[in-house]
Amino acid sequence: MASVVWADVEKASIRIAPFAHRTPVLRSTSVDCAARAKVFFKCENLQRTGSFKFRGACNAVSALPEAEKSRGVVTHSSGNHAQALALAAQLHGVRAHVVMPENAPDVKRRATEDFGATVIGCPPTHRGRVDTAARVERETEAVFVSAHDDPRVIAGQGTAACELIDEVGPVDLVLVPIGGGGLLSGTLVAAKHLASGIRVIGCEPAGADDAYRSLRSGERITDFVPHTIADGLRTPLGENTFVLIREMVDDIVLVDEQEIVDAMRLVWERMKIVIEPSSAVAVAPLLNGSINAVGKRVGVILSGGNVDLSSFFSGPPLR
Amino acid sequence: MASVVWADVEKASIRIAPFAHRTPVLRSTSVDCAARAKVFFKCENLQRTGSFKFRGACNAVSALPEAEKSRGVVTHSSGNHAQALALAAQLHGVRAHVVMPENAPDVKRRATEDFGATVIGCPPTHRGRVDTAARVERETEAVFVSAHDDPRVIAGQGTAACELIDEVGPVDLVLVPIGGGGLLSGTLVAAKHLASGIRVIGCEPAGADDAYRSLRSGERITDFVPHTIADGLRTPLGENTFVLIREMVDDIVLVDEQEIVDAMRLVWERMKIVIEPSSAVAVAPLLNGSINAVGKRVGVILSGGNVDLSSFFSGPPLR
Repeated sequence: MASVVWADVEKASIRIAPFAHRTPVLRSTSVDCAARAKVFFKCENLQRTGSFKFRGACNAVSALPEAEKSRGVVTHSSGNHAQALALAAQLHGVRAHVVMPENAPDVKRRATEDFGATVIGCPPTHRGRVDTAARVERETEAVFVSAHDDPRVIAGQGTAACELIDEVGPVDLVLVPIGGGGLLSGTLVAAKHLASGIRVIGCEPAGADDAYRSLRSGERITDFVPHTIADGLRTPLGENTFVLIREMVDDIVLVDEQEIVDAMRLVWERMKIVIEPSSAVAVAPLLNGSINAVGKRVGVILSGGNVDLSSFFSGPPLR
Repeated sequence: MASVVWADVEKASIRIAPFAHRTPVLRSTSVDCAARAKVFFKCENLQRTGSFKFRGACNAVSALPEAEKSRGVVTHSSGNHAQALALAAQLHGVRAHVVMPENAPDVKRRATEDFGATVIGCPPTHRGRVDTAARVERETEAVFVSAHDDPRVIAGQGTAACELIDEVGPVDLVLVPIGGGGLLSGTLVAAKHLASGIRVIGCEPAGADDAYRSLRSGERITDFVPHTIADGLRTPLGENTFVLIREMVDDIVLVDEQEIVDAMRLVWERMKIVIEPSSAVAVAPLLNGSINAVGKRVGVILSGGNVDLSSFFSGPPLR
């Protein structure tokens, strides 16, 4: 079991600085009024490749010894980590192999290839992804970089919370969505170091509540069928993230599908930024009253903004 | 004929500073590559009430002598100026009357009322708006604040370009959409003062090319039927804005409807921000090759982000 400590996040901040955007922190009068709090949104939807995933991927590639860099990297992902690792590798002159389910949207495959990665199709099951990635790893000797459980990835994800606290000062509360747990784990390591009294709360769709149930039962649940629009949060916790979250998280709250859509719409309409459903999962608890944030300073990590907009741009009045 | 000079913009910057957001400037690798330029987007879609209009309205209200403040303000608008003036008035403790066509969307009426303004319905014609506003002006003695031709409004709109140049340094080119011409006029006054060699280009939908034709003919065209999705740009130039633009603008370029939609989609998808079609009009010339920006530093004023999102949020996969 590999652990991640503050020094890892600190090193990650330095490593990714030349490559990653220092994303803006935005405010919203509407959300402040609804939550009766001061809410600071760390906009990782404005990060390169459209999500926080670039931080972790970039740190992982950058941290490789030169000998490993020459072997290339491999991962499996149908989502934001695919593009993030592809770009991170490209920027470091490292070859990337991305295993992606055969039924992944063509646009994701092309985006990943546009960053110079080789995309390898696989059966659309967890087993299919893992086995195919293992085969590519053997054949190419590339270094495997897990989307959320690699300690270098976790450390990289923690840099978003660092920048947030550095920019706005101490906050009482940080809200983070939970998928594989990389962003939450990194945030926990960073935030608990930077502000002792801070509470970090994981936010999860009720339709993919494996982290919530894993923490209650004390056993990591990996076998479940997610039912949520938040496509970035359908993954189970990893071995490392489960341990880190169990040790440090203050609470996990659940939100239902309608609350996710309502929060997403509010952010688009009032804040004029495009966030994906996974991001909205960390906004919803401020709107539905499930978290008491009254009078508090609250950080929210908006994890990403990769949404398929074709239905909007092909419908009236835009066509 | 009232003129607007640099000192007016400078005063406006000071007046609105306690109320308006200093909006972020964003970059986009995708747009830079497409235009082979360095493009700096001044994000007025992230301004209060979702558009640059708040700058001008806020300056106009703030500049009123106390005696006039107590009389209140009146305007006619079915769009962004309505909400902008309502909020500006509310923040200054001034009463606002907004004349709005009876067929305006309910959501716009409610948003304006939410900022404490009294909304007065009128026939959905230019004549109906002007006559109704004149009646309200007589009955209430409120001060009329034109959406684009009031010199205080024009000066306020110029503050966006000031902030842009202050933040990123000199640019070679600034692109601005043209509706009533307030934003372009203010930008011209500010930019031509701040950077002598700068070129300022107005961008207009081919389906509402009144400014383009007015400048060619030397006569302000006010009688035309606009056909464009860019609802903020359907207005004719004002008397003051026509004079300022004729004197100072370097060029006006036209874009067609498909180019507007394509530019809007690119900004949503790649930059993850919500812009309205009117904003996209100033992005499209960088993508369709109608402006040669190769190797240049280019500022684009993204004018606003008020879009009706119901079609997206009521359709699959979000419901």
